Amino acid sequence: MPVPPLPLHVPAVGWSPDLRALRILDQRLLPGAQEVRDLVQLEEIVEAIRTLAVRGAPAIGVAAAIGLVVALEVDSGGQETRARALLADYAARLQRARPTAVNLGWAIDRLVRTAHRTAVGSMLAALRAEAEAIRAEDVAMCEAIGQHGLAVVPDGARVLTHCNAGALATAGIGTALAPLYMAHARGRALTVYADETRPLRQGARLTAWELSRAGISVSVLPDGAAASLLSQGLVDLVIVGADRIAANGDVANKVGTYGVALAAAAHHVPFYVAAPGSTIDPHTATGRDIVIEHRDADELGELPPGVPAWNPAFDVTPRALIRGYITDRGFVEPPFTLADYAGR
Amino acid sequence: MPVPPLPLHVPAVGWSPDLRALRILDQRLLPGAQEVRDLVQLEEIVEAIRTLAVRGAPAIGVAAAIGLVVALEVDSGGQETRARALLADYAARLQRARPTAVNLGWAIDRLVRTAHRTAVGSMLAALRAEAEAIRAEDVAMCEAIGQHGLAVVPDGARVLTHCNAGALATAGIGTALAPLYMAHARGRALTVYADETRPLRQGARLTAWELSRAGISVSVLPDGAAASLLSQGLVDLVIVGADRIAANGDVANKVGTYGVALAAAAHHVPFYVAAPGSTIDPHTATGRDIVIEHRDADELGELPPGVPAWNPAFDVTPRALIRGYITDRGFVEPPFTLADYAGR
Repeated sequence: MPVPPLPLHVPAVGWSPDLRALRILDQRLLPGAQEVRDLVQLEEIVEAIRTLAVRGAPAIGVAAAIGLVVALEVDSGGQETRARALLADYAARLQRARPTAVNLGWAIDRLVRTAHRTAVGSMLAALRAEAEAIRAEDVAMCEAIGQHGLAVVPDGARVLTHCNAGALATAGIGTALAPLYMAHARGRALTVYADETRPLRQGARLTAWELSRAGISVSVLPDGAAASLLSQGLVDLVIVGADRIAANGDVANKVGTYGVALAAAAHHVPFYVAAPGSTIDPHTATGRDIVIEHRDADELGELPPGVPAWNPAFDVTPRALIRGYITDRGFVEPPFTLADYAGR
Repeated sequence: MPVPPLPLHVPAVGWSPDLRALRILDQRLLPGAQEVRDLVQLEEIVEAIRTLAVRGAPAIGVAAAIGLVVALEVDSGGQETRARALLADYAARLQRARPTAVNLGWAIDRLVRTAHRTAVGSMLAALRAEAEAIRAEDVAMCEAIGQHGLAVVPDGARVLTHCNAGALATAGIGTALAPLYMAHARGRALTVYADETRPLRQGARLTAWELSRAGISVSVLPDGAAASLLSQGLVDLVIVGADRIAANGDVANKVGTYGVALAAAAHHVPFYVAAPGSTIDPHTATGRDIVIEHRDADELGELPPGVPAWNPAFDVTPRALIRGYITDRGFVEPPFTLADYAGR
């Protein structure tokens, strides 16, 4: 089956052309400016992750892996003993860049384990190969989700999505948006509605930008308008990503997802979650067990003096509202044993 | 019963101290700047209404009434024959400031009818008295809604609201917020959550500002977080205003209201609509008959080039999701004949 072209002029995250730097598309500046940055210093890589220049769980994992490799290579001068001496400190500093990002810790752990099991003399080459494997697996994961999601995106489909689980959140063509790129590459006409996604406007800034670059028709709506859009029969299906999926199928995703799911259910519009198997956490029984990060009030913009914000980063959508899960290992509908699709 | 003090340092709309100008609090600048403006020229009054320096259905009606009187007085030099010659043109220009605002047309019609039935020699005085009556009735309407809503706001209540139906939307203490000011004046402790209300942020800019001025505890949340807040059991009741209420009880209000109502229903939290009887439109059978204004994409802020917005100003909440209506004529619960509470 044809693989759609990347909708971006460069991947959101990857190697620089000389393979000596982490190359990112700085997402803080989109859509106004499209700035590509090549990073080799650990502190600038940490800063890029911390300030959301790179964002999206898969992209963060890839950035951490490539970033750790290039920083170790530069700072050790290619000398393995010096690189081994730096490894634990660099790994810890990267992990602290976003302490709650599951993929960040997972990618770093994978490199650290690789270093520990590699014979003396070949560690730097082994780390480089492992980072490239993480990147290539991410690209393949996106394509697999796209393939497994094709069946729910017919010609003429009108699709609502929330936040950005697209190419900008991965090294490839995205998770929630992958089935849309696949369908578009097959000539299917699509109409996409992107929730603005306050407070950080990932839908307006990122999803709308990458879909329109790919030639897919997209409109932006205020988050509060989604229920009205659904009530008017203007949406055939909803696809969103996931930050974590509990063993019972409850989904933690960007705040606002749950309200969209409630409105979709009220109007009998199917609601799908697209995510890699690595997002399914067999150790988290239900959504109640997922700790939700609360973020600063300043993300909401100007508020009256002394007025606080209630600003959770994520919410939990219960399994009952989800028609199916589009994973890289297959399409999962109830009744299911979601754990069969977990893992990487 | 004690009437709470106005939470603002000046009414959102009223007479200047010398009674020769329309005095408004410019809402475009809130909460950053608190600028009071005295207007007498028709064009600046039209501009204030058109650009939302004055907003909220009741406040717009009062502004149009006082504005028409002061502009006629100034431009006629107090000469009735000259004022009569200007009346039709001034009334039409005010009406065009916001063509879909029901209260604007209603207030202007009331002044025009007053002029037509007044004997020669007393028109300007009669118009001034009628405009003051419209203002005073608005203040009384707010207090009546506050009284009738007191029963649903017990001590310790945690209240969610959307947009701004407060003092800033009226000449008095507001509609949806009036029961909160009444309860606060009786010493009841309240915790209020204000939806940000994109795209124009009336909740963050206006509701949070006026409640915090009154000493009521208020937090702002992104619109997408409301369903999550409700799911966590942090809300005892929801109160919102209404732009129009159909004869069957369906409510048109600021976009986002419907999604909040769905989430409240999912979590068994009572959802109330507070509005004057003038908002009940016996000629509109159901919500399907309400025409929804769509607004410009630029309200949403920066979007990628060529990406349109789907930006309706209002949505419709069906009667089935509404526990009760708090009107100036009484508290209405199903089963009801809403038309009994219609009118001014």
